[in-house]
Amino acid sequence: MTVHPAHTRVLEGPLGVPRTRVQLTNGETFDRYCTQGPGSEPEVGLPRLREKWIAARGDTETYAGRETQLLDNGKGAVRRGEAAGEWRGHAVQPLRAVSGRTVTQMHYARRGIVTAEMEYVAARESCDVELVRSELAAGRAIIPVNVNHPEVEPMIIGRRFLVKVNANIGNSAVTSSIAEEVDKLTWAVTWGADTVMDLSTGDDIHTTREWIVRNSPVPIGTVPIYQALEKVDGQADRLTWEIFRDTVIEQCEQGVDYMTIHAGVLLRYVPMTADRITGIVSRGGSIMAGWCLAHHEENFLYTHFDELCEIFARYDVAFSLGDGLRPGCTADANDEAQFSELRTLAELTSRAWEHDVQVMVEGPGHVPLDLVEENVVLQQEWCHGAPFYTLGPLTTDIAPGYDHITSAIGAATIAMHGTAMLCYVTPKEHLGLPNRDDVKTGVITYKLSAHAADVAKGHPGARDWDDALSRARFEFRWRDQFALSLDPHTAEAFHDETLPAEGAKTAHFCSMCGPKFCSMKISQDVRDRFGSGLDPEVGMKEKSARFMELGGTVYVEG
Amino acid sequence: MTVHPAHTRVLEGPLGVPRTRVQLTNGETFDRYCTQGPGSEPEVGLPRLREKWIAARGDTETYAGRETQLLDNGKGAVRRGEAAGEWRGHAVQPLRAVSGRTVTQMHYARRGIVTAEMEYVAARESCDVELVRSELAAGRAIIPVNVNHPEVEPMIIGRRFLVKVNANIGNSAVTSSIAEEVDKLTWAVTWGADTVMDLSTGDDIHTTREWIVRNSPVPIGTVPIYQALEKVDGQADRLTWEIFRDTVIEQCEQGVDYMTIHAGVLLRYVPMTADRITGIVSRGGSIMAGWCLAHHEENFLYTHFDELCEIFARYDVAFSLGDGLRPGCTADANDEAQFSELRTLAELTSRAWEHDVQVMVEGPGHVPLDLVEENVVLQQEWCHGAPFYTLGPLTTDIAPGYDHITSAIGAATIAMHGTAMLCYVTPKEHLGLPNRDDVKTGVITYKLSAHAADVAKGHPGARDWDDALSRARFEFRWRDQFALSLDPHTAEAFHDETLPAEGAKTAHFCSMCGPKFCSMKISQDVRDRFGSGLDPEVGMKEKSARFMELGGTVYVEG
Repeated sequence: MTVHPAHTRVLEGPLGVPRTRVQLTNGETFDRYCTQGPGSEPEVGLPRLREKWIAARGDTETYAGRETQLLDNGKGAVRRGEAAGEWRGHAVQPLRAVSGRTVTQMHYARRGIVTAEMEYVAARESCDVELVRSELAAGRAIIPVNVNHPEVEPMIIGRRFLVKVNANIGNSAVTSSIAEEVDKLTWAVTWGADTVMDLSTGDDIHTTREWIVRNSPVPIGTVPIYQALEKVDGQADRLTWEIFRDTVIEQCEQGVDYMTIHAGVLLRYVPMTADRITGIVSRGGSIMAGWCLAHHEENFLYTHFDELCEIFARYDVAFSLGDGLRPGCTADANDEAQFSELRTLAELTSRAWEHDVQVMVEGPGHVPLDLVEENVVLQQEWCHGAPFYTLGPLTTDIAPGYDHITSAIGAATIAMHGTAMLCYVTPKEHLGLPNRDDVKTGVITYKLSAHAADVAKGHPGARDWDDALSRARFEFRWRDQFALSLDPHTAEAFHDETLPAEGAKTAHFCSMCGPKFCSMKISQDVRDRFGSGLDPEVGMKEKSARFMELGGTVYVEG
Repeated sequence: MTVHPAHTRVLEGPLGVPRTRVQLTNGETFDRYCTQGPGSEPEVGLPRLREKWIAARGDTETYAGRETQLLDNGKGAVRRGEAAGEWRGHAVQPLRAVSGRTVTQMHYARRGIVTAEMEYVAARESCDVELVRSELAAGRAIIPVNVNHPEVEPMIIGRRFLVKVNANIGNSAVTSSIAEEVDKLTWAVTWGADTVMDLSTGDDIHTTREWIVRNSPVPIGTVPIYQALEKVDGQADRLTWEIFRDTVIEQCEQGVDYMTIHAGVLLRYVPMTADRITGIVSRGGSIMAGWCLAHHEENFLYTHFDELCEIFARYDVAFSLGDGLRPGCTADANDEAQFSELRTLAELTSRAWEHDVQVMVEGPGHVPLDLVEENVVLQQEWCHGAPFYTLGPLTTDIAPGYDHITSAIGAATIAMHGTAMLCYVTPKEHLGLPNRDDVKTGVITYKLSAHAADVAKGHPGARDWDDALSRARFEFRWRDQFALSLDPHTAEAFHDETLPAEGAKTAHFCSMCGPKFCSMKISQDVRDRFGSGLDPEVGMKEKSARFMELGGTVYVEG
């Protein structure tokens, strides 16, 4: 399924790299980055694109894997966790690196090996593969590709590449079903999500994730502490490193590509949040803060960080180092708690890199617009250029219901200054869980923010899309303007509200000025009759005379 | 009418300056700037607040005024221009300065006179009246208040004051009625529009404007060349200074507070647009460009500029110097045509100031985010700090249907750097005329952008609103969170979609995490039990013991 009849998904080159090709009415085509994947039947899953690439490297082995436990799906699974029974796709054993080997893209890159994943990404980004390899090797970019997620179409996250967008989905204790979540995944990638995070906290959490991974053409991220908390019935103080470790392995074997790990919430930072207006708002951050305080011990994610690295290295899972102390309102932005944690995330970044494990670092949250740039500047400096991945940030707290917009302002700004991936915020932020419409609005809002940043950064070729659409607009190619827009349906529907007639889609005017006078039209007439590149000093008088001769008016009469 | 039951319009001080008072459930109140006016019956109009202030200055006279002509309402008036007959409000003669006098707020300010309008504005902005007077005198701020619009509640536009938002309404040849436009006006000010521009181009243009002005508590702006063009049947080359001048006087007598004048579109700049992707997109700009080319003469608005100043000085109409050559796509931003015109607008600013006429300068449009700041920096430098009034700018061209968002990004950024007023962009931009819902979405999107800029500028007191809402959020005062938000209805409706039960509005959790675990709750518990201002080095062990003693868990069980 494509979003518009003028769009086709085409596969290019030996690796079959996908693009969305837009057919224009003037015979030209315009190719765009494509995230939506080949499409799948939910019960069968996607083709296993990377399987042969992984096998060819000869550094992985299949193994029996961890046995699925009743608790993996939460208490509710006993009552309603029947979805797994319908699965008709591959039943495969999990993969991991053979003992002593590291299978991360960073590991290969540092050894000068160019993988198929790197080639694929370079073709997708229209850049040299050496840029991909060298940025990966330096830790300034990541390709999140778990060996157990062969269905993924590889993509890259780094400031030298197109700014990416993540969409959060997931059920909660209060609402939604597995089928709904798979549908939201498909819907999110249809509109352009580059990665999807499954933040489920409700029942059937293991099975929901299995279906999401098997149907996802984009990397899947999770926050494993959410599932671990379910396993201890929501009692943070009962969490242990062993339960967490087991949950991480469970998710590694399923194929999760990156995991948010709140290892920077140190015991000594927690009191720094006491004077804040909104304290600790990160769910993972407050779980770990609660655990640290209850036990008066250091965060077990911090103390066991090297063990985590060893696990991640065997599956190529990337760290998304969580900012558990991110500000929850503009008043709390850029404070001691936030920046102390960032220093620790920088330390952890270096430790992960010692294991050749890929890392990105998460950022806020709620930040006044004048303080946005400082966040990415400090993160880039302290974390040696590791990709920054921010939630917005929201630039004001006064507009619940419109926080996709309050945050789009911060998101475009922080991405212009070097953030590599933006986590979307939907209109439901702070108010409820996003439904299908909210997912679409969130993704499109963030795609336009990411693109505005690409244009502002002067990313090679980024503005071509704007120019193609603006040319269509200037030439009154209405159908092309719709087809080239991020959301063709909404653009066309808005146009049709005022001028529904079929003829109006090819008319040389629009509803703003009406048929009698149109500024686009007058300006096109001026260009047509005078040509371009006029010397302003000469020939104007003659041109003027010729202009009057040719009809004398610069408008179309109604 | 107020937007929410917890809101009351209160009048403060001897001048009765309005505020929106929000009653909170914890007994506190929060006061906000109020734009909505006292409300009116459309056929009667608003009370004439300023009438006695103007009379007391003794420098104006009533006179017969220009006789209304059939052509003033366009050709269509003959057919359906009957609305004027229903008017039941005041029938008054127009006012103007007595011969030889100037009645502009700038004129008074420069002479050290503090007017009631200045006092009113100072109370509204919670600032010293001397700041108001001195900024007016320097030309860095304007109070747009035509002596023939006594209904207006004075407001100020300048970078030292709250960032303001303008909403465009108006019919076109294609659509809409007088009643609809008055309704849009009322709707726009209800949601926070600080000024409204009537951009009507269709039939009944004179009568529509009359009804709008009589019912508007905010300054009304127009683009008189639109009406002038209607008078010559849409044929730009038939325009003359005399027709334009007559139209301007017609509108001065009606009470229009500021007028967009495209006097900077000089003949020699027109060819500079020939190589652009979208040429000239400003309607007024293309009209004047067309006229200049057709006649090979200099723009009559430029050659007659001093006469315009003399007229404006007698009514206190402010210039909004139009940027007729503004870019229509990101590719055309910050080019020679745009900045050449800006140089001319700077020259005209100084000329208007010689007449003590108030001026603001219009700006773009479509600008990549990295080029936004340059626009306001150059404008402020070249135009000696005259208020900048920008349309967005849109930061990418690829999202028709979402251009309120593409432009909110540019708007917040340009306002942070010093733009004084933002002209809203609605979701219908480029596609059709805004309906009632679009007006609301546009106003709220721009209010949040303007507020984000106020916060980023560190405007005194601006963040108080964010903090009040964030406190309500942290304390689970859901009703207060709704009441304090820019759009309480949408916030509440979104909340209710997931948790409709009445009890959920006071519940200490939300649908994101559910009742079993909530990060806001955990963090509040941490604060409650540990207090604030902990010394991180001491006492933690004891606190931890006490914490376990007190229940040992940091969550609320479901």
